Amino acid sequence: VTDIEVIFEPDGRRSTAHSNQTILDVAHQVGLQIRSDCGGQGICGKCRVHVEPQTGLKELTSIELSKLTSHHQKAGFRLACQARINGTSDLIVTIPTASRGLQRQLQITGVSLSYKLNPAVHTLLLTVPAIDPSQSIPDTERLLTALSSLMDTKSLTRWDYPLSVIEKTPNALRKASGEVTLVLRNQSQILDIHAGDARENIYGIAFDIGTSKLVGSLFSLTSGKHIATEGMENPQLRFGEDIMTRLSYAAISGYARKKLQSEVIVAINSLLSSLTSSRIPLDQIYELVIVGNTVMTSLFLGLDTKHLAYGPFTPPFRGPIETQASKLGLDLPSQTIVYVLPNVAGYVGADALANILATGMNQHQKPNLLIDIGTNSEVILGNHERIAATSCAAGPAFEGAQIEHGMKAVSGAIEQVTLDPQSMTFQLTTIDNLKPIGICGSGVIDAIAQLAEAGLLSKKGRFTQKAKPYLISSNKKRVIILYKGERDKNQPSITLSEHDISQLLLAKAAIQSGYTLLLQHHQLSVEDLNQVFIAGAFGNYLNLASAKRIGLIPPVSLEKVSFIGNAALSGAQLALLSTIHRRQATQLAHTIEFVDLARHPAFSKIYATSLFI
Amino acid sequence: VTDIEVIFEPDGRRSTAHSNQTILDVAHQVGLQIRSDCGGQGICGKCRVHVEPQTGLKELTSIELSKLTSHHQKAGFRLACQARINGTSDLIVTIPTASRGLQRQLQITGVSLSYKLNPAVHTLLLTVPAIDPSQSIPDTERLLTALSSLMDTKSLTRWDYPLSVIEKTPNALRKASGEVTLVLRNQSQILDIHAGDARENIYGIAFDIGTSKLVGSLFSLTSGKHIATEGMENPQLRFGEDIMTRLSYAAISGYARKKLQSEVIVAINSLLSSLTSSRIPLDQIYELVIVGNTVMTSLFLGLDTKHLAYGPFTPPFRGPIETQASKLGLDLPSQTIVYVLPNVAGYVGADALANILATGMNQHQKPNLLIDIGTNSEVILGNHERIAATSCAAGPAFEGAQIEHGMKAVSGAIEQVTLDPQSMTFQLTTIDNLKPIGICGSGVIDAIAQLAEAGLLSKKGRFTQKAKPYLISSNKKRVIILYKGERDKNQPSITLSEHDISQLLLAKAAIQSGYTLLLQHHQLSVEDLNQVFIAGAFGNYLNLASAKRIGLIPPVSLEKVSFIGNAALSGAQLALLSTIHRRQATQLAHTIEFVDLARHPAFSKIYATSLFI
Repeated sequence: VTDIEVIFEPDGRRSTAHSNQTILDVAHQVGLQIRSDCGGQGICGKCRVHVEPQTGLKELTSIELSKLTSHHQKAGFRLACQARINGTSDLIVTIPTASRGLQRQLQITGVSLSYKLNPAVHTLLLTVPAIDPSQSIPDTERLLTALSSLMDTKSLTRWDYPLSVIEKTPNALRKASGEVTLVLRNQSQILDIHAGDARENIYGIAFDIGTSKLVGSLFSLTSGKHIATEGMENPQLRFGEDIMTRLSYAAISGYARKKLQSEVIVAINSLLSSLTSSRIPLDQIYELVIVGNTVMTSLFLGLDTKHLAYGPFTPPFRGPIETQASKLGLDLPSQTIVYVLPNVAGYVGADALANILATGMNQHQKPNLLIDIGTNSEVILGNHERIAATSCAAGPAFEGAQIEHGMKAVSGAIEQVTLDPQSMTFQLTTIDNLKPIGICGSGVIDAIAQLAEAGLLSKKGRFTQKAKPYLISSNKKRVIILYKGERDKNQPSITLSEHDISQLLLAKAAIQSGYTLLLQHHQLSVEDLNQVFIAGAFGNYLNLASAKRIGLIPPVSLEKVSFIGNAALSGAQLALLSTIHRRQATQLAHTIEFVDLARHPAFSKIYATSLFI
Repeated sequence: VTDIEVIFEPDGRRSTAHSNQTILDVAHQVGLQIRSDCGGQGICGKCRVHVEPQTGLKELTSIELSKLTSHHQKAGFRLACQARINGTSDLIVTIPTASRGLQRQLQITGVSLSYKLNPAVHTLLLTVPAIDPSQSIPDTERLLTALSSLMDTKSLTRWDYPLSVIEKTPNALRKASGEVTLVLRNQSQILDIHAGDARENIYGIAFDIGTSKLVGSLFSLTSGKHIATEGMENPQLRFGEDIMTRLSYAAISGYARKKLQSEVIVAINSLLSSLTSSRIPLDQIYELVIVGNTVMTSLFLGLDTKHLAYGPFTPPFRGPIETQASKLGLDLPSQTIVYVLPNVAGYVGADALANILATGMNQHQKPNLLIDIGTNSEVILGNHERIAATSCAAGPAFEGAQIEHGMKAVSGAIEQVTLDPQSMTFQLTTIDNLKPIGICGSGVIDAIAQLAEAGLLSKKGRFTQKAKPYLISSNKKRVIILYKGERDKNQPSITLSEHDISQLLLAKAAIQSGYTLLLQHHQLSVEDLNQVFIAGAFGNYLNLASAKRIGLIPPVSLEKVSFIGNAALSGAQLALLSTIHRRQATQLAHTIEFVDLARHPAFSKIYATSLFI
């Protein structure tokens, strides 16, 4: 084995590598994200990189020969997941913008939340009377007596008073004339003790572990004040974009499963340091509230997800789960509690409950519909009396995967498309107004809606006769050109094929089937809906008219529709700051009716209908 | 620094050592116990060893010059705690039997215990119905539903269901057609899950952490069957024989305190392997019940004992304490719980409560007296209505410390002394019928009682005129010869001096003051006592008539007196096997009246009186 050096451009990061490693592996070694929507299986073809010199790599694989155009092949491009080092020379790998796993625009603003500040973790300033020298009362007992005089409903023995706090107690009681600050949780646990008044020093973090992204928000638990929000891509993405790919990876071995866990733990540790940015000591963080779908929370907790991979998709736990953060490998002290909101069933997990909390739909009299659009999408329908939920395996098409020029909603992505019916020309808006390098989900939805409206697409998503003049042939497929690239600058055209359109319609149909079936389940019609909430990745970027046109959202008056951003995170924040909401989540976990889409007798018929535009 | 080699005889153990180390240090390096009653402070003079060649050591210290006879000095004897290596040559160190820290005769048989088997940890065989494929119910929920159908008083959410058990649940449910064995604790915790019927596989251990010795008993929690009992000296002994010396050592630094903790933890780990002797897997041990005085349990838990060292001798905790065994460094899996019985006050700790449980005196109508004789002694008096307790700093005189020829109750110790009033000659009985090498506590008590009875000792413990013919002068002191050694065989005579006698009377007075004061406290007289229980180190070796003659036990008819051996261990066993007894202990911890001997207004007068024979 000969070690060589690989330099990645434009970052300039360097790594040593050895024969037979793939470029993708080496990139991961130095923390570089290269797009690999398929999890490095050679299916998506998105991990295209330029390598110099070509002689330092083994020959093009048959996958590369089929996925790379001959133009790219000649120009020295390879697929990072396929190209293996042969060890003969150092390499320079250039990652084109379109192949980079970029920082996405995170939807970290949720709905505006209305709640009463009443976190599970709170403080109590207590003065413990001085020692009576005529008695020999244990220190913990003196403290508990003083505590129970303030909280008269509690008997002495009911408090969970861990050894680590007992250890601190004798000195704390003697330091500030008996004045101590207790950090309590749920009126049953003593998490910490400090001499004197330290009531300001308690913080908590709400985390949303999404299939694609992780977002955390740090709050003061004394004031409820928002301190910081930070997000990053879920590093599990390199093991596959969607839940099923991750489940397959986790099923390989206990090691693989723990690997997925540690990816998320390491990422959360890094978010912890950016959230606190050395201003807030980690030992003042007493609680983490976690939401995510059942697969994400199970992997986070290191649990076996084997039985989630096939019907009836049994989650390992209902929850809520409480455990010590340090036991999971989080860089937090032993007193920090991780609280994972409960699951409902199947893939409908804590994130769905958090969505409900954020909208308050469990309190409303009139029925509301909530659609959380993501790699794993949830559809929830109901009111204060009953709520039904389902999860839809929409897959990552909304994130640009499985679409030839698809990409995430990052700089340079086409996010809006308008077709001038007169001139039949497209007007494109890209994120950050850059030259287009691809098209993101909202762009594709726009394009399909516009093409259908102009009569260029049939209900089935096939190009009509009318479209013929605008089609060209590319790689043996008929495509419509949205943006004409400049070939001499090695900039590809951005096109849409019938295959691309059908990928998006498949994803759309999953969601449409979801709400159609739930309406049927509740014996409601679209007119009965009071509000429709759209949560998830799109945020405000989605053109509602287009979404309605293709059936992604039901045919309601658009005033009834509101974007609620990352409502799962908002719900997690509520559960962090308000025990009433936390309790509601646990109740909901038991009462929500889970509708298993795939096993529903009416599903296949509804799904077939939903494939139409 | 030059490294030399030290060989210890008769074991033949070898150790490298460097200049300025004491022989005691080097002995500890290789795990050899040399007597050091004073904790290596040069006070007790018991660590006498023979060293060759003398030129390999630094010169005799002034302490050695005062503690070693000139005979011993010339013969090459040194005090191991004083003699420092000078690094010029290798050494052969011979440890005489009298200086060895021998395996003591452990009192591991307790009273015969009457209880109903109802341990806190128990199993439940449960059949969880197969998965209903039309639903997607989480695995933990299916289990809890089946569990609650058996235990209808419990709601689903009340169970403490730790992550480690959740992790095992999905596979356990699918392995034996849904039949699982749950290991439960206190009807509130799920400690473990196994596929199939594993009801036989639960064990627990009761440990008594004594100041001088550690004893543990392993039981099946399914049958209550006793599997094994093992004991060893408390390795903290090398940091001092009595509690106060240990507290001083612990007060040096957090490191010193943790050192004392780890000594006990390592010892318990070694007892764990001898108890299970590879026949019982450690992961089938679900609970350890620990008793000990407040200092011992606090050090075991790694707690700060600073405030136990001075009045009002405040223990850090009341307890009971429950914590994970693995957190303390014990070689046990994460599900094993350590349960430390609660403290009362001062040095009256869990061992006193265990003593009470073992005698059942808290259930008796008539008042009983319990005296637990040890380095730290407890005296307890009361009945089912009220119980008072006190601790007496008797010190290690009963163990032979502070007495010139004193030794522990090990082979070769004089344990019985009879004085023939006609011939005025002593008849001696030694342990294992060996040639006497010293005298243990019961022997000294016998000797004093016999001397007093024969009129050779005054009430104050001074030799009378009548004793004069039998006294000789040794080291400027008047001593009575119990056994005449053979000087040419380098075997010393065994004698008793007035100083030796006063050391034992001081210890006796501590205990006598204890029961006198408690009788006063209860307004009872000796005649009111129904039973007197003698627990602790002496076991059956104590001559009751002698003990009564000198006032160590009150003047009651001897039929009322019974030896109950290591009753603290017996009580710990009860707390392990019977939750009713465990609950009683917690109640008693709060209701027992603690009488602080040293601060009692009548103490000094009573103590002065108690010094008399």
